[in-house]
Amino acid sequence: MNYRMIFSILGRIMHVVAALLLLPLAVALLYREDTILAFLLPIGVLMLLGTLLSRLEPRHNRTYYARDGFITVALAWILISLFGALPFWLSGEIPSFVDSFFETVSGFTTTGASILTDVEALSHGMLFWRSFTHWVGGMGVLVFVLAVMPKSEGNSMHLMRAEVPGPTVGKLVSQIRLTARILYGIYIAMTALEVLLLCLGGMPVFDSLVNAFGTAGTGGFAIKNASIGFYNSAYVDGVITVFMILFGINFNVFYFLIAGSFLRALRSEELHWYLGIIAVSIAAITLNIGHLYDNLLQAFRYASFQVASIITTTGFATADYTAWPEFSQGILLLLMFFGACAGSTGGGLKTARLVIMVKSGLAQIRHLFQPRSVVAVKFEGKRVEESSLNSIHTFFIVYMMLFSGSVLLLSLDHFDFATTFSAVAACINNIGPGIGLVGPTGNYSIFSDAGKLLLSFNMLAGRLEIFPILMLFLPPVWKRK
Amino acid sequence: MNYRMIFSILGRIMHVVAALLLLPLAVALLYREDTILAFLLPIGVLMLLGTLLSRLEPRHNRTYYARDGFITVALAWILISLFGALPFWLSGEIPSFVDSFFETVSGFTTTGASILTDVEALSHGMLFWRSFTHWVGGMGVLVFVLAVMPKSEGNSMHLMRAEVPGPTVGKLVSQIRLTARILYGIYIAMTALEVLLLCLGGMPVFDSLVNAFGTAGTGGFAIKNASIGFYNSAYVDGVITVFMILFGINFNVFYFLIAGSFLRALRSEELHWYLGIIAVSIAAITLNIGHLYDNLLQAFRYASFQVASIITTTGFATADYTAWPEFSQGILLLLMFFGACAGSTGGGLKTARLVIMVKSGLAQIRHLFQPRSVVAVKFEGKRVEESSLNSIHTFFIVYMMLFSGSVLLLSLDHFDFATTFSAVAACINNIGPGIGLVGPTGNYSIFSDAGKLLLSFNMLAGRLEIFPILMLFLPPVWKRK
Repeated sequence: MNYRMIFSILGRIMHVVAALLLLPLAVALLYREDTILAFLLPIGVLMLLGTLLSRLEPRHNRTYYARDGFITVALAWILISLFGALPFWLSGEIPSFVDSFFETVSGFTTTGASILTDVEALSHGMLFWRSFTHWVGGMGVLVFVLAVMPKSEGNSMHLMRAEVPGPTVGKLVSQIRLTARILYGIYIAMTALEVLLLCLGGMPVFDSLVNAFGTAGTGGFAIKNASIGFYNSAYVDGVITVFMILFGINFNVFYFLIAGSFLRALRSEELHWYLGIIAVSIAAITLNIGHLYDNLLQAFRYASFQVASIITTTGFATADYTAWPEFSQGILLLLMFFGACAGSTGGGLKTARLVIMVKSGLAQIRHLFQPRSVVAVKFEGKRVEESSLNSIHTFFIVYMMLFSGSVLLLSLDHFDFATTFSAVAACINNIGPGIGLVGPTGNYSIFSDAGKLLLSFNMLAGRLEIFPILMLFLPPVWKRK
Repeated sequence: MNYRMIFSILGRIMHVVAALLLLPLAVALLYREDTILAFLLPIGVLMLLGTLLSRLEPRHNRTYYARDGFITVALAWILISLFGALPFWLSGEIPSFVDSFFETVSGFTTTGASILTDVEALSHGMLFWRSFTHWVGGMGVLVFVLAVMPKSEGNSMHLMRAEVPGPTVGKLVSQIRLTARILYGIYIAMTALEVLLLCLGGMPVFDSLVNAFGTAGTGGFAIKNASIGFYNSAYVDGVITVFMILFGINFNVFYFLIAGSFLRALRSEELHWYLGIIAVSIAAITLNIGHLYDNLLQAFRYASFQVASIITTTGFATADYTAWPEFSQGILLLLMFFGACAGSTGGGLKTARLVIMVKSGLAQIRHLFQPRSVVAVKFEGKRVEESSLNSIHTFFIVYMMLFSGSVLLLSLDHFDFATTFSAVAACINNIGPGIGLVGPTGNYSIFSDAGKLLLSFNMLAGRLEIFPILMLFLPPVWKRK
């Protein structure tokens, strides 16, 4: 393991986090809030520690393996969550450090699960920082570092592969740094467009900004206790629904669109499945909840918002779906596991993995009754290689192991099965609200500190696609070689 | 598809079922019950139809593919459930045919889920038949046919492979028929031993017999409303706990023991994992429920019975575990999916599959941080082939798909999540009781007819390891070739 290299990268990341904290600091100054010190102190510490760590940069041994990439990403995410939690804790707006840590992990991992019972009591600076973590975490803080730092290419692919959601990451262009910049460019442009559209709908600028952060990162932290339902506007619901769905699409699709390859963009098989699943789910829920609303159009409005919010793993809410029929809740619970497209800001298993798994299941059945048939799975027009299939399968298995083990451990907190099960599902898939006591009107303050740390672990594991975080706990990884 | 061959085998199976019905008929006569006609009528119809179908036996085309084997097994199990339900329905003891069918499927698949709210109201003949279906279904009705019929060898392996639980079936000896006979020999001997031990403990002969049927088949139908808790005897609990665990062991182990290969029998890796999981679960639950009982010994007695009952997928109960802490319920819920050993009478995913999946997950993680390492999984001292790994993985995926889809559909019945989730888990894994409203003190009468048919489908799919039953619904299977 190239420890010096890992530490120096962590140092650079601390500098970036310090820089990011300047924004909420500015907001706090603008609103003349007394939280200035709660931002300044962490900024100072981050600058100091970051500078010390950066000095460790190795002059000769610049070899950097996939393993080092995984470890760097895992440590980086834990570090930024620890330091990112400081403002909440130092300001006293979230008195417990574990709660502050949970909230920050939930922010960076774009989960949106909250321990706050009254979010409206927070100051503007804190609300801004809380939602801004979604925006930073959505595309990835290391991808950001890659995009802005004028550094060598060598180790970048490993970092990017470990941080961007989805089974595979393709370089859009030959240079990693350029790829990272293009991704962030699309990301910024789309966020700006959403802010503009929300403002045009009459939403205050501050609200438009933070809600756009929550949408773009598929995060879901709201700044009102009633989430997006607070605005009670069909226009706002519509804009956010569309943008949630957009941010759940593989960013390659947008890149191809910009590059003028319309056909290539629209031919994406994953996109078809993703939109198909959304359409079917909205239709089923609309019909199932029709009797609860004035007319089908209204049912459609609430069904489409909630479906988009859950499948993209955002977690905003405009309706308390725990009051919907069990069938609709069942669909939403299932969508929690589906997740958005690979290469988007969303969490979950990802549409691509899901489709490939279903196809390989069908291929296996066909093979059983036609033993001479070849078990081949095609996706995006190409045959999926045996090794990719195998790694998707084992990912699912490890994911289910982690999921079951976490549900079992969390049951020590003595809540009903729906609550425990959906809390883990909502955290590991980076969604936010679940069903039962952690539904859209509930929150995560009910859990013990141990439970909150377990769920924080689940959020990190889910965001980094499990392996980097699991590796931290495997002794052989730390053996010197 | 060799339809004539399939029909003639189904004809033979109908004869066997007619013969099996003679036993409960004898019990009814012994107790002078007025259910004679309810047994005689189905026997007559089965004999007639069976004879007609047997005539279809092809003289020339005796080719019989794996596909035909799967279809035969699936159709056979649906047929025996339909005809096996007739006595309950004709006698009026279970007035609804759907209920009778559910109860019979639950019997043959060794699930033990019941729609009866007062099982003690049933006549002796019906109680006997109900538990006897467990005993027949445990080892497999086609394996029984193989064991008793003096017929050709050609098609037997396909049938046996489709019916015996577990990822792989090895022939114990070169002849299939002899293998089937040895299996049934062990099965009969162990059942007889349990009957004897229960009788020695003071249990009435009738009760000993039917409870041994329920244990041997890992079924779980009780003849008392309080299940085995009725006898309130530490001796009875102990005997049944031990026999449940024994019937959950791969029968190959017993064969090696009989054949004198003690070392080979005890070296079984699956056996070690199976016993290890049982020991850890019992220890954890004993500690977790200790405060609910007079002393740890009593807690151990109830913990070990319930753990053995759930992991072997039997489903007997001596305690209402839905009143236990959520952590203990969580362990039991997890064990529902684990299941017993391959090649036993138990259901679930099976210990072998589970261990192989966990190992391949770990191998994948190792491969990520040491990319040059080979992803090899060893089980029972041998390397698991790529194709076996792949088929275990896809089995798990199809299983999870079926499971999630069923939970979603059953949620149309409007029960709470714990009830819906655990009802499907308990049926697909052939256990019986779940948690929530279908816990040990509840029953399945609460579901709609459509829900009961869905759960019947799940029980059959679980018992036949999914693929044969799924195939029935795939159009390409029925294409003439």
